[in-house]
Amino acid sequence: MIIDGKQIAQTIRGELRDQIAALRAEGKRVPKLAVVMVGHNPASETYVANKLKACAEVGIEAERISYDEYVTEQTLLTEVHRLNNDDSIDGFIVQLPLPEHINELNILSAIDYRKDVDGLTPENIGRTVQGLPSIVSATPRGIRELLARYNIATEGKHVVVIGRSNIVGKPIAMLLMQRPYLSLPGMSAASLGDATVTVCHSKTQDLAAICRTADIIIVAAGSPNLVTASMVKPGATVVDVGINRIDDPSAPRGYRLVGDVDFEHVAPIAGYITPVPGGVGPMTIVSLLQNTIQAYHEYTR
Amino acid sequence: MIIDGKQIAQTIRGELRDQIAALRAEGKRVPKLAVVMVGHNPASETYVANKLKACAEVGIEAERISYDEYVTEQTLLTEVHRLNNDDSIDGFIVQLPLPEHINELNILSAIDYRKDVDGLTPENIGRTVQGLPSIVSATPRGIRELLARYNIATEGKHVVVIGRSNIVGKPIAMLLMQRPYLSLPGMSAASLGDATVTVCHSKTQDLAAICRTADIIIVAAGSPNLVTASMVKPGATVVDVGINRIDDPSAPRGYRLVGDVDFEHVAPIAGYITPVPGGVGPMTIVSLLQNTIQAYHEYTR
Repeated sequence: MIIDGKQIAQTIRGELRDQIAALRAEGKRVPKLAVVMVGHNPASETYVANKLKACAEVGIEAERISYDEYVTEQTLLTEVHRLNNDDSIDGFIVQLPLPEHINELNILSAIDYRKDVDGLTPENIGRTVQGLPSIVSATPRGIRELLARYNIATEGKHVVVIGRSNIVGKPIAMLLMQRPYLSLPGMSAASLGDATVTVCHSKTQDLAAICRTADIIIVAAGSPNLVTASMVKPGATVVDVGINRIDDPSAPRGYRLVGDVDFEHVAPIAGYITPVPGGVGPMTIVSLLQNTIQAYHEYTR
Repeated sequence: MIIDGKQIAQTIRGELRDQIAALRAEGKRVPKLAVVMVGHNPASETYVANKLKACAEVGIEAERISYDEYVTEQTLLTEVHRLNNDDSIDGFIVQLPLPEHINELNILSAIDYRKDVDGLTPENIGRTVQGLPSIVSATPRGIRELLARYNIATEGKHVVVIGRSNIVGKPIAMLLMQRPYLSLPGMSAASLGDATVTVCHSKTQDLAAICRTADIIIVAAGSPNLVTASMVKPGATVVDVGINRIDDPSAPRGYRLVGDVDFEHVAPIAGYITPVPGGVGPMTIVSLLQNTIQAYHEYTR
């Protein structure tokens, strides 16, 4: 069965729109997101525009704060501190990448974890690991939501995560191994957590043999066709986080996007599988919206 | 081969003593630890006394700050903030457990991560996960040190961690799966990190089969004889973090301490194994000393 991320994302946006409408109907303040954009990187401009548009669609207030590419680290830090202390802002993000003269880590570390709706601060990561209420970064939150919406239980299952990045592999591993402690608005009763989790990466020996023991494979390695049919146990769930361009002269732009999974051959044997595009991807902006609403409810309301 | 934690701990204490003596010889300030003790829990009194004694032996200055068991959370928080801002203190710990009327998490979260030499704050955990310089809590740091001192490389090895606690299982899993980024004073060149890591726990199905694929087993489950000989691949390394009392009428106190491993039957087939007592245990106070010196060098010197 193909996991339709686009459809789930649409469904959740509808739910969030209803939630915001209910707040307005009660005469309450609605959540507000600020997006700090430095310079004019074309990809970043597109991402930021999409985020602002998504906010508008569900009724979250959003503000874009723009700086030119020559802004100093100190000026940005001052902006972060201002946003930390601005009661009208529930959450904010600093769109990455930043220009090379600015230390991204210094900027990210300065964000109050209660407003860190990208979930990238060490404090939020640490709270996630410790099983405390925390804001989870976009991709792991989106994966968890997809599993929940399709009632794919993880308790006692063997989850193999391929990739150990700070923004995908490590946090999703933590979330799925620990005792379930979250009940998210709109989430089904599937038990998310309590999985046996193996984290694999470029140094792993005999990846294929490990994958064959997996009930759920989550791959975020950035390597086309890394996961082939012979590595997947029949009926297993396969979540593909990869986004890779490969040449395709027949495509309008001369390339097409593929994930890390040999979708054509894995899909027939997988129990559930996410396509690329249209699987995990559409969930990331939804996660940002959910995180903004979470920050509003938990911290700033 | 039996990993002699007692001997390694003694060796490291000697090294630390030399380091502190060198600082004194150069006319420099020496590191200082503060220990906040609330009430008079007998076990805690013993632990605190041992920590202070260990500091004295290596030349780290140490101060005990005592409160009676009726101290308010607010008073303790004020003390934490004072210590955060006291330039003469390089690190401090609040001895747990605290009386029931005090929220431990509130106290721990208030500790500046740069002085958190127990490595228990979310900020430090998050920094560990993100591969940033961080202070690692006592047991995982001790395990890493034992592996390094015995030149047990982890790169590409399959490490099975049994137990998913915040203070042992999760942090040691993170440390061993990620790219090596630390070069600790006194540590050998063994590559620590880059392992394929599986985290198992009470919900894991077929623990024995998973363990049999492990090159290194780290068990912190609190369950005597959980790891038996049939679960261990010949030549594997077995690190036993468990400390359990079992009845033993022939022992002077009527009980004896055992780990989570059936040591008698596993030792003959393991490549390396830590005994209980005398394995991981003696390393925990050493880790505290090392963390205090690390905080001194990285943050407060």
